[in-house]
Amino acid sequence: MSRKMLIENGTFAVLEQDQTVIDGFMLVEDDLLTYIGSERPDHCDDAEVLDGRGLLFLSGLVNTHGHAAMSLLRGYGDDMVLQKWLQEKMWPMEAKFTGSDVYWGTALSVLEMIKGGTTTFLDMYDHMDQVAQVTEESGIRGVLMRGAIGLCPPEVQKQKLDEAVAFARNWHGKANGRITTMISPHAPYTCPPDYIEQFVQAAHDLDLPMHTHMSETQAEVEQNVADYGARPVEHLLKLGMFSRPTLLAHGVHLTDEEIEVLAAHKVAISHNPGSNLKLASGVARVPELLKAGVTVSLGTDGAASNNNLDMFEEIRLAALIHKGVSGDPTAVPALEALRMGTEYGAQSVFLNNTGKLAAGMKADFIALNTEQAHFVPRTDYVSHVVYSAGPKDVEHVWVDGKQIVKHGVCLTLDEERIRHEAQAAFEGLLSR
Amino acid sequence: MSRKMLIENGTFAVLEQDQTVIDGFMLVEDDLLTYIGSERPDHCDDAEVLDGRGLLFLSGLVNTHGHAAMSLLRGYGDDMVLQKWLQEKMWPMEAKFTGSDVYWGTALSVLEMIKGGTTTFLDMYDHMDQVAQVTEESGIRGVLMRGAIGLCPPEVQKQKLDEAVAFARNWHGKANGRITTMISPHAPYTCPPDYIEQFVQAAHDLDLPMHTHMSETQAEVEQNVADYGARPVEHLLKLGMFSRPTLLAHGVHLTDEEIEVLAAHKVAISHNPGSNLKLASGVARVPELLKAGVTVSLGTDGAASNNNLDMFEEIRLAALIHKGVSGDPTAVPALEALRMGTEYGAQSVFLNNTGKLAAGMKADFIALNTEQAHFVPRTDYVSHVVYSAGPKDVEHVWVDGKQIVKHGVCLTLDEERIRHEAQAAFEGLLSR
Repeated sequence: MSRKMLIENGTFAVLEQDQTVIDGFMLVEDDLLTYIGSERPDHCDDAEVLDGRGLLFLSGLVNTHGHAAMSLLRGYGDDMVLQKWLQEKMWPMEAKFTGSDVYWGTALSVLEMIKGGTTTFLDMYDHMDQVAQVTEESGIRGVLMRGAIGLCPPEVQKQKLDEAVAFARNWHGKANGRITTMISPHAPYTCPPDYIEQFVQAAHDLDLPMHTHMSETQAEVEQNVADYGARPVEHLLKLGMFSRPTLLAHGVHLTDEEIEVLAAHKVAISHNPGSNLKLASGVARVPELLKAGVTVSLGTDGAASNNNLDMFEEIRLAALIHKGVSGDPTAVPALEALRMGTEYGAQSVFLNNTGKLAAGMKADFIALNTEQAHFVPRTDYVSHVVYSAGPKDVEHVWVDGKQIVKHGVCLTLDEERIRHEAQAAFEGLLSR
Repeated sequence: MSRKMLIENGTFAVLEQDQTVIDGFMLVEDDLLTYIGSERPDHCDDAEVLDGRGLLFLSGLVNTHGHAAMSLLRGYGDDMVLQKWLQEKMWPMEAKFTGSDVYWGTALSVLEMIKGGTTTFLDMYDHMDQVAQVTEESGIRGVLMRGAIGLCPPEVQKQKLDEAVAFARNWHGKANGRITTMISPHAPYTCPPDYIEQFVQAAHDLDLPMHTHMSETQAEVEQNVADYGARPVEHLLKLGMFSRPTLLAHGVHLTDEEIEVLAAHKVAISHNPGSNLKLASGVARVPELLKAGVTVSLGTDGAASNNNLDMFEEIRLAALIHKGVSGDPTAVPALEALRMGTEYGAQSVFLNNTGKLAAGMKADFIALNTEQAHFVPRTDYVSHVVYSAGPKDVEHVWVDGKQIVKHGVCLTLDEERIRHEAQAAFEGLLSR
């Protein structure tokens, strides 16, 4: 017999063009949404009832690019030139990361993400077994991959590839399907061409999608042309990557022709506006990408370059900056920005069962408390979510039908312990 | 005998270049900060004691441009071309605003601002007696002015000027000095030159500073050149405005020469990044303004064009967008952005007794709850405030030595009633 929950008197952000919200009822059966509508559904007398008054229900937010454990380096280096920041601050500290550091850094990030309404996150890092463990324990949905930098001797390259393959095979479909995996060379500028080809082959062998960083900075694009005689899109196309379903992070510096190639090969882009602004990488051509039919989703990137994991901020930045930079106030409308943070996010990580409030989808959803000044007057809830809401408006969170945040408190993780252990991990990194 | 409060075990963001925070003690006597330091002060045995553990104390945020009552139109029109938005949405509704609408709209905004850590706000609008009343009741510090649009017959022009003068004279220094006033023609493109000159004369007569909108859009600058043969800075200079202490809102489109004129005349700029992005007005030349020595502060603008009144967001945007647009990751460092939201804000509205945590200043300060994931690890609290914090991290707020928010609850305003009345006011506007 299935476990049922009926939400009454709620407002449900279904985000259809002709009807963005429905006032009424939503039925959850086990891990699935089975009904949303203005009329009370049949066959729900045995359901647990939740009064949705004063709550706005949204599909959970999907963070499509990040390195969760890097929250241990939040605020450790800011407002610096990229190479100096990487060479003097990030890389020396990251080289010291142990599995335990990754566990606590990831727990710190997942805690922040869950409480802020993110129900699915992508993670590309090292020590991924620990990331998978946090994912399993916390109840979040995770799209996980061992990211590999190939600037190392062949035997180390091989070891990283083997780890990436073993991780992807071992964890795909685990935690009741909450964990899926991808195959991820770090970037064209950190992986020699033949090494990228080995990852493409592994992705074919495992029938998994691929993820990599691409064209984050202008300098990186120029280096690619100098080294390989091609811009990154053409380079990756030649290496066969786009023969797999692929998600690229950043894609800030793209030509019209490159956008056409991405659209033709159904390659998705994870737009990371906060990180791109903070690292002065530039402003991605999101209106042009959307117009060309490319699936564009949103990511926070790691907390060392953001410095939070607030998807409401990424949604808002996506809606704001392209207007300001293009001079067109209709660029990236609010509804499109919110879809980028939900529906397009799920599509970007190749999940077809989440990212939308609709019957048949997984019960991955959040409830915002709208009984607050910044949600008044009740004009347009999509506008309010995009332009006014924040992570702490999140009252409740469910993933896979299970409630993991209740009245702002995470039910699955020990917040105080995580903050303490993460602080200790950071101090340990400093002292080693 | 003075009323004393001693804060122990706190972290105090004094924001000096060589020491941004002090761990220790802060003493408040009546409406003043009298001590901040790492040692326990003398003569405080009779003080009420507050345990500051887990709290970060900051000077209250200063919002230097807005139209509070416009929160009644939050989300009523978004993602539209400016003229269509003004003509079809804003102006028809604003024409119907009564004193009661302004009262409830302002109360809604002040509630959001106070709870979000803003302790001083500037307001330019109509029905200003109601705005002053909300300011008095709420306990916030207000810099208030009747803004006048001069596109009307001479007798209406005169009536507005008289109202502006009477309001400025009647309310300046009221509410224990919490209310100060300024003189404010709306903008060079909405006020004929001779009308602006009358405001300049009034400001001289009353010995008050001036405020106006200027160079928000490129079109407005071009219109000014077409109408008056000069760009707005030269135009206002000729009309004598800069003979008064002046704060200009926006200043998005400025030449190098105009920046020099502003610096030479000590004219301050209220940078409104959220509003400028949303309305696609462009990105102000903030790094150049700061380099030239212009005082740049931050404003939310009205909630119809933002759509929140979150000063943390404006501080973050100020730190982020100029990096992304200029390609320089050192443009507008975090400390400078935070000063723009506090110290430079107070300077912009010509208050020399607030905007900074220092002995001798008014006790206008806020406490953020740092026992949260996004403040971990404890690396750099200035970075965390600028890049990670949000309005709902505000635990307590004091203005003029009086606590007005305690554990996130506003002590001076009836939140539930304000939300209800603001919603009713909006529905009334729709139905009239």
